[in-house]
Amino acid sequence: MTYCVGILVADGLTLIADTRTNAGLDNIAQYRKLHIFERPGDRIVSIATAGNLAVTQAVISLLNEGIRDPDTGDHETLWTQPSMFRVAQFVGKAIREVYRVDGAALEQSAAGFDVTMLVGGQISKGRLRLFMIYRQGNFIEATEDTPFLQIGEHKYGKPILDRAIKFTTGIDEALKLGLISMDSTMRSNLGVGMPIDLVTIRRDAIRHDVLHRIEAGEPYFHDLRERWGAALRAAHQAIPKPPYSG
Amino acid sequence: MTYCVGILVADGLTLIADTRTNAGLDNIAQYRKLHIFERPGDRIVSIATAGNLAVTQAVISLLNEGIRDPDTGDHETLWTQPSMFRVAQFVGKAIREVYRVDGAALEQSAAGFDVTMLVGGQISKGRLRLFMIYRQGNFIEATEDTPFLQIGEHKYGKPILDRAIKFTTGIDEALKLGLISMDSTMRSNLGVGMPIDLVTIRRDAIRHDVLHRIEAGEPYFHDLRERWGAALRAAHQAIPKPPYSG
Repeated sequence: MTYCVGILVADGLTLIADTRTNAGLDNIAQYRKLHIFERPGDRIVSIATAGNLAVTQAVISLLNEGIRDPDTGDHETLWTQPSMFRVAQFVGKAIREVYRVDGAALEQSAAGFDVTMLVGGQISKGRLRLFMIYRQGNFIEATEDTPFLQIGEHKYGKPILDRAIKFTTGIDEALKLGLISMDSTMRSNLGVGMPIDLVTIRRDAIRHDVLHRIEAGEPYFHDLRERWGAALRAAHQAIPKPPYSG
Repeated sequence: MTYCVGILVADGLTLIADTRTNAGLDNIAQYRKLHIFERPGDRIVSIATAGNLAVTQAVISLLNEGIRDPDTGDHETLWTQPSMFRVAQFVGKAIREVYRVDGAALEQSAAGFDVTMLVGGQISKGRLRLFMIYRQGNFIEATEDTPFLQIGEHKYGKPILDRAIKFTTGIDEALKLGLISMDSTMRSNLGVGMPIDLVTIRRDAIRHDVLHRIEAGEPYFHDLRERWGAALRAAHQAIPKPPYSG
């Protein structure tokens, strides 16, 4: 499994991804699922991936190596895209290219062709944007009404985001809430695990602000988990007991 | 969709079920999913149902009307079972009987044969027990290590149970936590909705303690939702901001 969350707020965006992959419970490995394409001042694009590892790795390779346009003969890469919308389209195109090569074989297996991606960032004078790309290669975008997007094992970590994330939430608070959401997911699904990769990008900075890997036992994250757990216990204990009687 | 949770603790058990059913988003109705079979002093059995409504209603009807044993010719109902284990087996038998009649037709449709049930209660001198019955008619039981069981849309409401429910949790606290779990689920999935039915059964009482329907706008549940939301906000705001820098 995988859990990745992207949150877009007024002053920036954050992407958070776990690193656990598994082909069955008896074959667990660690792979980076958060990828950064950055040329400060020109572009910062961050991509979080979920789904079949062979597929997501092939897509990331294509984004770097490029795809030749059969009509124009142009060789496109993620680095040549002029806007975030075009980046999202290009990621979709790379997914379709992998599907063209591997789709038929994968669809005949139990695994299927499974991939979703979060793509967030900003290119020169464009806007900071966050997209979710489907396995079909099409995509949706985070908006002020719905400022977060999730891929992979998304349900355990959704309630806290539903309650707390608004477009006006500060970027530090958004990162904190994303980490709480990740913690809830890791507690309920062993397929999602440490370390955790995260990036934050401030609006109009055109470079990453924070790019960090949280390893198991890191003091801040450990403290966040402890405080959150203690606060939840205090919260439910403080609620009066149900008044219902037999 | 449906969400039902059953919690078994040292001093009793509680079952909580929503009442929303839907055949598509444009066909939503309200049905009771929590059923009580009670003869105080002799037995109290509570059953919460999830899955295809036609199937779950047919099973509940069979539990009351009974099934004739082809070998002995005996006519069995839920009321004739001598223990909770035999009740769980009998519910499984009723599910298999419905499958025998309707399974083939349902398996050919997109809906499939979909049913799971929580069965909790106590019969005369037996133990208070809680089971989850699968569509195959077999079942598992809640234990001191894993004192809660969920059916239907279970993921949104699981993190709070994972953190807070222990076998030593008091029955009032267990009910409160079940309601918080239900609230989280209703916020994230529109297919789970009010009113909410709940029952609590104290160990060795052989009768229900509380049997209650929470209607929309009920003051206690409204207050619980408000307090929980406020406590979560206070909790994440009280966590120090992430120390990571670029």
